[in-house]
Amino acid sequence: MNTFSYEQLYKFTHDMLLKIGCPEVHAQIGADVLLSADMRGVDSHGVARLSGYVRLWEKGRINTNPNIKIVHETPSTAVVDGDKGLGLVVAPYAMNVAIEKASKAGTGWVSVKNSNHYGIAGYHSMMALEHDMIGISLTNASPLVSPTFSKERLLGTNPISVAIPADQEPPFVADMATTTAANGKLEILQRKGQDAPEGWVQDKDGNSTTSSNGVKDGGALLPLGGDREHGSHKGYALGSIVDIFSAVLSGANYGPWVPPFVAFLEPDPNPVGEGIGHFFGAMRVDAFRPAGEFKSHMDNWIKRFRSAEPTPGNEKVLIPGDPERELEEYRKTNGIPLLDPVVKDLSELGQRFGVKF
Amino acid sequence: MNTFSYEQLYKFTHDMLLKIGCPEVHAQIGADVLLSADMRGVDSHGVARLSGYVRLWEKGRINTNPNIKIVHETPSTAVVDGDKGLGLVVAPYAMNVAIEKASKAGTGWVSVKNSNHYGIAGYHSMMALEHDMIGISLTNASPLVSPTFSKERLLGTNPISVAIPADQEPPFVADMATTTAANGKLEILQRKGQDAPEGWVQDKDGNSTTSSNGVKDGGALLPLGGDREHGSHKGYALGSIVDIFSAVLSGANYGPWVPPFVAFLEPDPNPVGEGIGHFFGAMRVDAFRPAGEFKSHMDNWIKRFRSAEPTPGNEKVLIPGDPERELEEYRKTNGIPLLDPVVKDLSELGQRFGVKF
Repeated sequence: MNTFSYEQLYKFTHDMLLKIGCPEVHAQIGADVLLSADMRGVDSHGVARLSGYVRLWEKGRINTNPNIKIVHETPSTAVVDGDKGLGLVVAPYAMNVAIEKASKAGTGWVSVKNSNHYGIAGYHSMMALEHDMIGISLTNASPLVSPTFSKERLLGTNPISVAIPADQEPPFVADMATTTAANGKLEILQRKGQDAPEGWVQDKDGNSTTSSNGVKDGGALLPLGGDREHGSHKGYALGSIVDIFSAVLSGANYGPWVPPFVAFLEPDPNPVGEGIGHFFGAMRVDAFRPAGEFKSHMDNWIKRFRSAEPTPGNEKVLIPGDPERELEEYRKTNGIPLLDPVVKDLSELGQRFGVKF
Repeated sequence: MNTFSYEQLYKFTHDMLLKIGCPEVHAQIGADVLLSADMRGVDSHGVARLSGYVRLWEKGRINTNPNIKIVHETPSTAVVDGDKGLGLVVAPYAMNVAIEKASKAGTGWVSVKNSNHYGIAGYHSMMALEHDMIGISLTNASPLVSPTFSKERLLGTNPISVAIPADQEPPFVADMATTTAANGKLEILQRKGQDAPEGWVQDKDGNSTTSSNGVKDGGALLPLGGDREHGSHKGYALGSIVDIFSAVLSGANYGPWVPPFVAFLEPDPNPVGEGIGHFFGAMRVDAFRPAGEFKSHMDNWIKRFRSAEPTPGNEKVLIPGDPERELEEYRKTNGIPLLDPVVKDLSELGQRFGVKF
């Protein structure tokens, strides 16, 4: 494990993105989105993924100089065509369209097709905060998740992020996969050779398993809830809503047709749409009530929940976004730790492209 | 257990609502909303609740002849003041505002204050379907749920419903509490003297319990996920988002301040808003892509998921809304079964008010 400063990793990512053909402004925003994952502790979605994006570009599945554009719109909605661009770049473009719509119509809702993996959902939802808007960010993803009662993988981990501004308190920021556990958490257990808790994974025959290799061995992640008795049909419904809003509304691929993120797996030869899909929302809080009023009640909400009496053995009740914010503060000072295989992967990548790591 | 026809129960509910002062049109819609719960098998939210509404009216906490109105609006948003009306009546009013906004601006979003319990969430989201719109319906509710790590009850079961139209296939209709299990399911186990599965309930000290009396004895329902390891922080975040959209946006009571549904518990003497809150959304699918295209892809989505290979011991993969729709078909022909205590309660109610049951 080695530790790197934000600036080091930002510069490397930025330079790599330039090297594969991104315009300067895209290299900046792409690096910013990717690094925000490392800063917030979602290590699986940060620089560890950079070589994955590069391999997709090498296969011609990512266009690093895309013509991203609105292809349909109403006063409060738009569909954006990402032109096979990096999701890291397409998503902020689309979120800005949502914010622009909201500034005029009260709310803005943008569905995106023809995109790729967009990093952490929370980066995009949080773009709304400085405008005193609530931000919403959803995306579908390659199929790794089995619906309740299904042996087949039909959904991605399809995250939901909602960011809500407060006044004196830091914002409320939920950012979560619609599965019991994110794939990144499973990979950590794999590396340690440890079992997974019941309710995270099923094996290739569709039976519940505690093997942390279950997904790698042809099984699937389970929807939030784990099994029917614990509400997995709700996690399945949430993942489905994310899929439909992101892809059936926009004309992207949905369900099992979503193209894989890994370059060694080929996309379905008979796609039902273009690329992967995202969905963004922005709601001006003063489209409902004066922003000052709203934000002071959010402060009250947050303070009340934070001061609730904790259960035995727990220190305090957290507000969604607290753990990521704390880690971000810590890493600002102490740097970003990267696992040895990630360091090796990045330095090989740098060597291959003549970019200093 | 006795079985009643839809018409019998509709007429009784309608006549009771007239008797307590509802105008004719409110009695009709109130009865329609309440009976839709019985038809769809959400028995805890149907006529079984009628006497509860009446008791709230007797206490002066429900206004049966409300002046429901828009108090703030933009092209795509509104805040509705329910004037202490029955949620059963306020909610369809607000959903119609959302639909009207969507017909002009592409989408419509309505937050509601000063309302009461609105029946099943799915009734209101499904109102969008006939307009080729996606419908969204959220509400907060009296605090019965403890956030992750909290001993205190701070949230209601805060349901989320999303209804999405298809073409030849029946619509996708998710309607779910953001807890592992709805309170109604726990009550069924209580009546049978059976334990609850792990992950549904915590006791008054904040420890996990399998006692189905756990909530009655001062404990709490658990957010979807059950515990931290199984993602309860996600269920907590979802319930919180429902609470904030429904109440902090509108100016209703939120969190632990939401007034109780039962008349024998008094509302907080220092409320932070007015009544309970709801949130509704309507999105015209042709604000994104042609409706025919969208709906035919929804058919494809539904068929693909429905035909997935099932896990061992399960017959097939269901689409959200399938179980409720099947029950509705069955009850249309075979009537609505009511438990003996519910029959007794309703006939006493009828006697007390001189309405034939």
